[in-house]
Amino acid sequence: MQRYFIDPNAIEPGRITVRGDDVHHIKNVLRMTVGDHILCCDGQGKDYYTELVSITDKEILCRILSTFPSKGEPRVRVTVASSLPKGDKLEWVLQKATELGADSFLPFMSSRSVVRLDGKKSAKKRVRWQRIVKEAAEQSHRGYVPQVGNVLTWKGLLEKFPSYDQVLFAYEREGSSLVEVLQKTRSQRLLVVVGPEGGFTESEVEEAVAQGAVPVQLGPRILRAETAPLALLSCILFSFGEMGGEPL
Amino acid sequence: MQRYFIDPNAIEPGRITVRGDDVHHIKNVLRMTVGDHILCCDGQGKDYYTELVSITDKEILCRILSTFPSKGEPRVRVTVASSLPKGDKLEWVLQKATELGADSFLPFMSSRSVVRLDGKKSAKKRVRWQRIVKEAAEQSHRGYVPQVGNVLTWKGLLEKFPSYDQVLFAYEREGSSLVEVLQKTRSQRLLVVVGPEGGFTESEVEEAVAQGAVPVQLGPRILRAETAPLALLSCILFSFGEMGGEPL
Repeated sequence: MQRYFIDPNAIEPGRITVRGDDVHHIKNVLRMTVGDHILCCDGQGKDYYTELVSITDKEILCRILSTFPSKGEPRVRVTVASSLPKGDKLEWVLQKATELGADSFLPFMSSRSVVRLDGKKSAKKRVRWQRIVKEAAEQSHRGYVPQVGNVLTWKGLLEKFPSYDQVLFAYEREGSSLVEVLQKTRSQRLLVVVGPEGGFTESEVEEAVAQGAVPVQLGPRILRAETAPLALLSCILFSFGEMGGEPL
Repeated sequence: MQRYFIDPNAIEPGRITVRGDDVHHIKNVLRMTVGDHILCCDGQGKDYYTELVSITDKEILCRILSTFPSKGEPRVRVTVASSLPKGDKLEWVLQKATELGADSFLPFMSSRSVVRLDGKKSAKKRVRWQRIVKEAAEQSHRGYVPQVGNVLTWKGLLEKFPSYDQVLFAYEREGSSLVEVLQKTRSQRLLVVVGPEGGFTESEVEEAVAQGAVPVQLGPRILRAETAPLALLSCILFSFGEMGGEPL
């Protein structure tokens, strides 16, 4: 069933008023009519099963039929820090990682990042990225919309490390095995850092380690910059029992 | 370093002759010259570190400097059967799954597959898919090129099940947890089956189970048809110690 994130202020006892872009989507794209059902999520952990009661160009009134907790949130919170890859690859990292269960995103530029964004371009991109994440969160039945942060410099990213219980960074040249690291950790707030196509420089690796990050190897195959964060995230969530079943 | 799969017949004592499309890539795309180095892989588990000795439009002669076993092959062999998804999504499933370590691919059409290919179109597509897989295998340092099978009907796919030690299929509505299934299995030849955007029909699920397949759930979040095979593959390889480290 189609699912929308709704401004919590639009929720009143027994009813929800849908406004904004979602009205167009429900009315004109999906061509729904009075009596059809949609799921509304308040983005704070609650889902509402509703019936459309009235439809205008500006708003859609929904009657709440039942309420239940959103089921889509992992207990472990993984933030994905991805160096800006070429083309639109970050867009699909955002989409796929949201489906898988990422908590939030920190795009960054390091020495070897090919893509460079200035403040203006970066703000525009961020609006687009946030929309992609919202749509993926709706589609995958997430309980809230992961936030995409401002594009950080490498130094800016390093400064974020102390906010996390553990920081892992993908490094093909050396590092602990992922299995080993995950067997030792039961951290609840993880940051995973994945470099650009050309990898990290040696001094970046040193700086990350000095800031407490743990380098991890993902096995003998060389993963692309856009594949590594998804593989890492899948394995971490699997290890925490979030891909079906109990923690390992 | 750039790496190419080479016809084993092109390998002679001490030297390798590169022919075909790779000549154009080495000469005109990368603009390499005599004295530059490339890695050649025989696609049968052996890598050759070589130096370019002579370059013409038709062939490039390489001197073998050293030989070593390809390191990129997982011990567990996972075949990915993916129902034809919309657009070019299968192309990136093929690319990413090859990087991660898939053994081979079986595209198929089931009741709810939106994309339909007749024999002619399917043969043309297969050439393209195989090229994508070859390039991904070269880039990710695989020891051989995974093979993409002919597009199968659902019935055709069911007939393949007995060739595998275990068949898992992603089913969001019910099934064992992936952790549970993987803890019990040490099968060496696995087939993972992922349905189209609209999922499997109930009768397809029954037919798959009757043929010995095990339905698995990938957790509470709804993964897209193109995300599920990559998540499944990552978790399986992780569980077998193929994403860095020992088996769980």
